[in-house]
Amino acid sequence: MSDQGASLIPSSAPPAPSGPPPKVTNHGRTSDPVANSNSDSSDLLDFEPFSAPGPRGFPPLTEYLDIWEVDMMRKPTQTNKQQHHTSLFNSDYLIVRRGQEFEVKVVFNRPYKQAEDKFALEFVIGSSPQYSKGTYIPVFPTEERQSSWKGCIKNTLNNTITMGITPEANCLVGKYHMYVAVMTPFGIRRTRRDDGRNLYILFNPWVSDDAVFLDDESERQECVMNEMGIIYHGAYDDIAERNWNYGQFNYGVLDACLYIMDRSQMPITNRGDPIKVTRKASAMLNSRDDDGVLVGNWSGEYTYGVAPTSWTGSTEILLTYASSKMPVCYAQCWVYAAVFNTFLRCLGIPSRVVTNYFSAHDNDGNLKTDIVLHDNGRIDRGRTRDSIWNYHCWNECYMSRPDLPAGFGGWQVVDATPQETSDGMYRCGPASVQAIKHGQTCFPFDAAFVFAEVNSDVVFYSRSKDGTMEPVKVNQTHVGRLVLTKSPGDETRRDITDQYKFPEGTKEERTVLEKAEEYGCKREKSNPPEADVDLVLPSLEVRVGDDFELSLEFVNRSNQRRTVDAYISGSVVYYTGVTSSEFLFRDPTVKIGPNEGVKEVVDVESRNYMKKLVEQSNLHFIVTGKVKETGQIVTAMKVVTLHNPKISVTVAGSNKVNEEMVATVEFTNPFNFRLEGVYIRMEGPGIMLPKFKYYSLIPGGSSLTWTEFFTPERAGSTRMIVTLDCPALRQVHGQAPLVINP
Amino acid sequence: MSDQGASLIPSSAPPAPSGPPPKVTNHGRTSDPVANSNSDSSDLLDFEPFSAPGPRGFPPLTEYLDIWEVDMMRKPTQTNKQQHHTSLFNSDYLIVRRGQEFEVKVVFNRPYKQAEDKFALEFVIGSSPQYSKGTYIPVFPTEERQSSWKGCIKNTLNNTITMGITPEANCLVGKYHMYVAVMTPFGIRRTRRDDGRNLYILFNPWVSDDAVFLDDESERQECVMNEMGIIYHGAYDDIAERNWNYGQFNYGVLDACLYIMDRSQMPITNRGDPIKVTRKASAMLNSRDDDGVLVGNWSGEYTYGVAPTSWTGSTEILLTYASSKMPVCYAQCWVYAAVFNTFLRCLGIPSRVVTNYFSAHDNDGNLKTDIVLHDNGRIDRGRTRDSIWNYHCWNECYMSRPDLPAGFGGWQVVDATPQETSDGMYRCGPASVQAIKHGQTCFPFDAAFVFAEVNSDVVFYSRSKDGTMEPVKVNQTHVGRLVLTKSPGDETRRDITDQYKFPEGTKEERTVLEKAEEYGCKREKSNPPEADVDLVLPSLEVRVGDDFELSLEFVNRSNQRRTVDAYISGSVVYYTGVTSSEFLFRDPTVKIGPNEGVKEVVDVESRNYMKKLVEQSNLHFIVTGKVKETGQIVTAMKVVTLHNPKISVTVAGSNKVNEEMVATVEFTNPFNFRLEGVYIRMEGPGIMLPKFKYYSLIPGGSSLTWTEFFTPERAGSTRMIVTLDCPALRQVHGQAPLVINP
Repeated sequence: MSDQGASLIPSSAPPAPSGPPPKVTNHGRTSDPVANSNSDSSDLLDFEPFSAPGPRGFPPLTEYLDIWEVDMMRKPTQTNKQQHHTSLFNSDYLIVRRGQEFEVKVVFNRPYKQAEDKFALEFVIGSSPQYSKGTYIPVFPTEERQSSWKGCIKNTLNNTITMGITPEANCLVGKYHMYVAVMTPFGIRRTRRDDGRNLYILFNPWVSDDAVFLDDESERQECVMNEMGIIYHGAYDDIAERNWNYGQFNYGVLDACLYIMDRSQMPITNRGDPIKVTRKASAMLNSRDDDGVLVGNWSGEYTYGVAPTSWTGSTEILLTYASSKMPVCYAQCWVYAAVFNTFLRCLGIPSRVVTNYFSAHDNDGNLKTDIVLHDNGRIDRGRTRDSIWNYHCWNECYMSRPDLPAGFGGWQVVDATPQETSDGMYRCGPASVQAIKHGQTCFPFDAAFVFAEVNSDVVFYSRSKDGTMEPVKVNQTHVGRLVLTKSPGDETRRDITDQYKFPEGTKEERTVLEKAEEYGCKREKSNPPEADVDLVLPSLEVRVGDDFELSLEFVNRSNQRRTVDAYISGSVVYYTGVTSSEFLFRDPTVKIGPNEGVKEVVDVESRNYMKKLVEQSNLHFIVTGKVKETGQIVTAMKVVTLHNPKISVTVAGSNKVNEEMVATVEFTNPFNFRLEGVYIRMEGPGIMLPKFKYYSLIPGGSSLTWTEFFTPERAGSTRMIVTLDCPALRQVHGQAPLVINP
Repeated sequence: MSDQGASLIPSSAPPAPSGPPPKVTNHGRTSDPVANSNSDSSDLLDFEPFSAPGPRGFPPLTEYLDIWEVDMMRKPTQTNKQQHHTSLFNSDYLIVRRGQEFEVKVVFNRPYKQAEDKFALEFVIGSSPQYSKGTYIPVFPTEERQSSWKGCIKNTLNNTITMGITPEANCLVGKYHMYVAVMTPFGIRRTRRDDGRNLYILFNPWVSDDAVFLDDESERQECVMNEMGIIYHGAYDDIAERNWNYGQFNYGVLDACLYIMDRSQMPITNRGDPIKVTRKASAMLNSRDDDGVLVGNWSGEYTYGVAPTSWTGSTEILLTYASSKMPVCYAQCWVYAAVFNTFLRCLGIPSRVVTNYFSAHDNDGNLKTDIVLHDNGRIDRGRTRDSIWNYHCWNECYMSRPDLPAGFGGWQVVDATPQETSDGMYRCGPASVQAIKHGQTCFPFDAAFVFAEVNSDVVFYSRSKDGTMEPVKVNQTHVGRLVLTKSPGDETRRDITDQYKFPEGTKEERTVLEKAEEYGCKREKSNPPEADVDLVLPSLEVRVGDDFELSLEFVNRSNQRRTVDAYISGSVVYYTGVTSSEFLFRDPTVKIGPNEGVKEVVDVESRNYMKKLVEQSNLHFIVTGKVKETGQIVTAMKVVTLHNPKISVTVAGSNKVNEEMVATVEFTNPFNFRLEGVYIRMEGPGIMLPKFKYYSLIPGGSSLTWTEFFTPERAGSTRMIVTLDCPALRQVHGQAPLVINP
């Protein structure tokens, strides 16, 4: 060593750095931060010189055009909002849709001279606007010079010109600011920033160049313009309806939707692509991973928030999220789907809420849902993972899919309910409905997952003592029994099962399942022999609190006598299929003569199930058994939805815009026990914003009345929606249709 | 209201709940938590009765088989580890690969009688083991009764039997526990839990039924078995090498890899699928989103961690993460790729690190990278977003892709470096290299993103005063210039560019780009006329601290005189392409006669760039200009990588296993300034675990020597790797190859 200074003696540990560690920066990673907020914006300069000023500054620019006034023509009654289908928005700002011309009036200090004067309207979105990123767009009045957005002068009158502006059909969606810029030889002179010149540009299903173009006016009226929703629940053979006020045009809702994207730090430059917007939103609508809009809660304990069954619409949820900047408590699947629907319709992406009855879940693209039986045929609850939901709601949205081969555009499934397995993050879709129907589950996003939700087999296994299991019955028709959505234009149901699946038993169906298997969906291959004894459970309509009879029918299709050791288990279940507790168990031995049927009647008493009811009051009967003579297994399942008491609402008054009316809510506690901690909520599209009342106690048998005044804001057909909710009784709805005249 | 009790008077707000809000549980959401940790496990019962015991308990079970001893045959020299290619693992446990038989010896209290005695080996992984989930697998000795894993008796000797067990080729990968269970008429009697009967099951590239089967022994030896890596960096015309000790067989590394999956809460049941394992790992190797392994830092400030350039291998990083359970500081792309490579090879998934020179980044599948010029041809640094990395490293791993149509299996790109845009999360892949080559960017995962990294165009825009921009030059060959990986079996480079792209200019290449465009990749369509003046920058090899000449050649291909107003800008850049500072600027006017060439020489003095150097010492020269006569734009870019001084390491001794040797590290500070805060790190596969020394100061011109003893653990060809790192001088490497004899 040539220079043995003390400093060269190594120490095995470095000196400990003092102070807190610095925040890691990435300044060598990227040159500038990605613009990801639509509320950040950087002002353009009032004057942008072309070169340094002379020693005495710039000469006076009096000879050049000066801007006196700008009129965004933003009133709901003016043609902009009328023609862009945005006049229902309760907003002071101009709201237009892309790919379609709108008009703006500019008043100069003198008449505009086309040959000499040079000006442009400049549209700016987000921070660090750039032309090549689509975040800064100048629009020129002359044909010779045009940018990506077309501009033209529609009209000239004295000092005033009317400019027509056509944003590109694939431009970014969100809130822009408009400047008027005048070019002088010394630089560009601009209007000062003025929030009155803000404008919102939305997706446009009315324009064929837009990726969300939907060529059907009745669908557009339903899936973009309708605020009044119906969401189906209950059971496929006993369907229940829930009214919902999407409220996409309510004051503040559009800003809340933009805030959701800002909160997700979604780059501004991605916000023109409906694939990216919907995928991001499916992650952001739930609070998992990213502090998104809604906290899921399936526990039955909602003291510190609103019970999922209590909400009447999306407005309160979205406005609360945007103002508190905290996830809102609580949601279950239909709440996620309904609020997601508001988000999509508000931004102009056609969308609808669909309900899938018997939806397989959490099984990761695997096409099997397992039910495990003991050796003797009785269900082994400890080993049966409940992964069939009685129903599940998701959204469909309409768009082209340029990222996929031709044929997979159209309706796409997106789902905001947090599930266990969607590529490691709590989101799902967009998955092409066409791809699902044809088993093309290789295409993004999450098509295999949705395919499993509508196509899984239910496999009954018999578990032997040494731990191995053998499939004894495969039910291929239980899952995905029915897919429903609201019909456009009226209040009826529309069965769209055929958009997800070919009819059971057809050749196409088999081909599709084989195709999906090629892509890694695992099916149960074994085909255990069918038992020659059938077991049938009837459909039932039962009111909560009623005693009733469950009559099982055993049918012997053989020519020999059959003896069945049957196990009848009744339990209270969540709508997710999760068992809360068993309230009934019978194990009769049923003897059936050759080619005979035998009825076995089980009395179900309300006192047994009432104490154990969980929120949606579903009773789940599962009957399994073993045929003594053959060792074959028979099974049947039935979900009985208990019908809750109704809450009534009536409206009275002139049924005219801006004239006060009155709504009367009435409810009688039909039980012999008291209800505690009761919330009643009420709202109606275009007639009432969300309101609620709290009653600490309603004694058994007693009634209440709540009277509330309201003033309709606009004409049209609508509904007053009311819910009642308390820990002992959830899911009580009422509604009153009404038509408001202008 | 019939019963107007006080309780029925509504209050508009409910009583405020007291105490902190409860943790939201999902107990109605799913019936049991998903098993997602390989370190959790639930013990099976020592005795599992078939029915309730009689009044005096169970009868004595002395007549049934009793287990005296179990031998997992886990020594590195025994056939299990030899045949399963796992004898290099420094581990006390049995480690085998799936789809291939291994043997276990069981000693009973008496000879086993096949006709009477019933026993099984039970393999269990994770909590709540279940046969149908593949987390509980009994293995039987008799042919009549077999589970999904094959079992047989290989040998019987007195009381001892040797069982052969063949785990399914798609079974879960991770740490299992083995029980021996004996069936009695009263119940199952088991061995007590004993960690000596733990075993690890890995992916198996040697077996054709495994999804990671790789039918080439030299590739398997390199991509699974080789610990010694070479990672390429520098520039495509001046390639530099970095040695890396993957260390996948070091003590504790396998457990650290399983911990990474546990930490990600990846369901146990997904851990047999290499697609899911690699996708999850690409997210977990970086700390973004999920507190994964490595914190990225491109700031140049690494006081509170280890500089990315300082690491010599993966072992230290993985063991630190597993023990501290905190992300490790710091990484840049090659560190992510190298540690990911260790993870993959350790679990048995064939993998390699590749380097892509001029890698387009952060542009979200868009095939354009923009460089913005002023009106006069000079680069507009404020508007140019730097998104071409001088090089970028990622991983390829080998597997079948049953989720995609046929033809897309084989090598798959995965990338753990956090990038701005990979479907909203910091991860990337697996993306089929075949799909990338053929422009089939519609297939998951992130193929469009990787396609853009190797295929983007560089578009030069000229920005006019009113803010609009026009493309003036499109360079289609700059990005993805060269893709390299280490050759199997030796230390040479292998050019695999042709696996990612068809040759530039071929018909296939054009077809592929059109195909990718169909799937939404946006290209620049305009084809601005090529200038008739060419600008050529030579390749240069320069040592850090040297003055040198940059000679530009302007070639006039026209028959007329041409005058170019040129702008020559030299700046120091990060390897990410981000500009740190400009150290040189010239704006000569160059006159060129018809069909002539003119050389313009620029002197580059070290004193101008030395003070501004950032870690990897890249100088970036960009020359732009405008041809006066035609208005055309000419451009040229060149990255000059400054060569650092070397650090030397020599080894001396017997070169024999278990005999002490000595390594001598020598370094001379070649500069006239002192180096402060210097770390020297050293390690070598199979010969030395990571060690470091810290020197607070090395005066200019002085030398140091570090001597360290080591004892080789195993025979074979290996290297001692050494790095020197300090804030003023990074990326100093040295290595010494050596062969250890048995």
